[in-house]
Amino acid sequence: MPMWHIYHPAGTYTAQEKREFAAQITSLYADLIELPRFYVSVVFHEFSAQDFFVGGEPDNGYVRIWIDHIARRTPEPGKRRWWMNTLNQELAPFLKDRELRWEIHIDETPHEFWTINGYFPPAPGSVDEQRWAAQNKPAPLVGEQAD
Amino acid sequence: MPMWHIYHPAGTYTAQEKREFAAQITSLYADLIELPRFYVSVVFHEFSAQDFFVGGEPDNGYVRIWIDHIARRTPEPGKRRWWMNTLNQELAPFLKDRELRWEIHIDETPHEFWTINGYFPPAPGSVDEQRWAAQNKPAPLVGEQAD
Amino acid sequence: MPMWHIYHPAGTYTAQEKREFAAQITSLYADLIELPRFYVSVVFHEFSAQDFFVGGEPDNGYVRIWIDHIARRTPEPGKRRWWMNTLNQELAPFLKDRELRWEIHIDETPHEFWTINGYFPPAPGSVDEQRWAAQNKPAPLVGEQAD
Repeated sequence: MPMWHIYHPAGTYTAQEKREFAAQITSLYADLIELPRFYVSVVFHEFSAQDFFVGGEPDNGYVRIWIDHIARRTPEPGKRRWWMNTLNQELAPFLKDRELRWEIHIDETPHEFWTINGYFPPAPGSVDEQRWAAQNKPAPLVGEQAD
Repeated sequence: MPMWHIYHPAGTYTAQEKREFAAQITSLYADLIELPRFYVSVVFHEFSAQDFFVGGEPDNGYVRIWIDHIARRTPEPGKRRWWMNTLNQELAPFLKDRELRWEIHIDETPHEFWTINGYFPPAPGSVDEQRWAAQNKPAPLVGEQAD
Repeated sequence: MPMWHIYHPAGTYTAQEKREFAAQITSLYADLIELPRFYVSVVFHEFSAQDFFVGGEPDNGYVRIWIDHIARRTPEPGKRRWWMNTLNQELAPFLKDRELRWEIHIDETPHEFWTINGYFPPAPGSVDEQRWAAQNKPAPLVGEQAD
């Protein structure tokens, strides 16, 4: 978690811009939510106009972002809206500032239905999670959540 | 919302048929649920037989449709079944009538975790949503939900 | 249900290995949970290094698996963890044993928002479901859930 799918028209981003976009997304989660950087996966899907429709019409200027969150629950509507506003503001160089149209939505999925390299990720904010973040890789748990 | 992913074997639909399929999906949401047409995104994903398996076997005649709903909650099982029946009936020219096998499933994701062009979409059935539908594009909110 | 999306770097699996991987996934659901084999869909998505990022960096050795479950609810955290452990152990020949890094997560979606060939799948463990499993294809329901 999180996993980002970015569906975009062919040619929207160069290889370098994709890398900068993914790095910026990753830094938001690492800096603002203190997630380990390796929790963040970003996949770019390039589409031709004949495979992508908005409102029943082809749209060569639409970027559609589909995200699953796993590591954190965010039940409060206000906190959800804060995160969406943060994304829209901090990612503007890749979205709004290019005069694209863009849509983002996030779902949340169960923590117990998630493993990395076969490990169950540690509890949010735990000592183990801080260690995973510092080492930027998964490792056996040693704290309370170990089993 | 909704976002439709249509996974299909190579050559199942022509470019014109994809456009008609996407237009028909969009009209169902606009006509029956009164959603703004631009809420509906449809992406076609073409797969080769060696990348798509049903029951552990390649299947060159299987269309797998994966949908996320965001703009409307449909908690009642009866209403969910009505919508599934409607989809299967109204989209038959692109599915059943072609002697394909096909599978459809829908998930619902949180309304507060969704923006279009940086705007939070208005409440279901609100004056703002009706205006978005009439103009077929997002705009600043002016009603009760504005913030 | 279940639907598996396997996102992998180009060249990770041969066509034959993809088939064996999909067959092994399918057998786990059929043997351990007694699902009809045709319930299991597996799609492989091959990505180039410039379209796939983990922690903001390209990663040519990362396999990211995204699953939706529909046919069964698994609310108990312990049972969820058992299933994840089973997947990691039984699929090791395609993941751990290749010295890949890999991440798996599962979501659950509503049963009433699901049809196959226009049929609502029967209730879990019902006589109809057993018949679907034995025949390995959907058919009109004849038991209590028929409508």
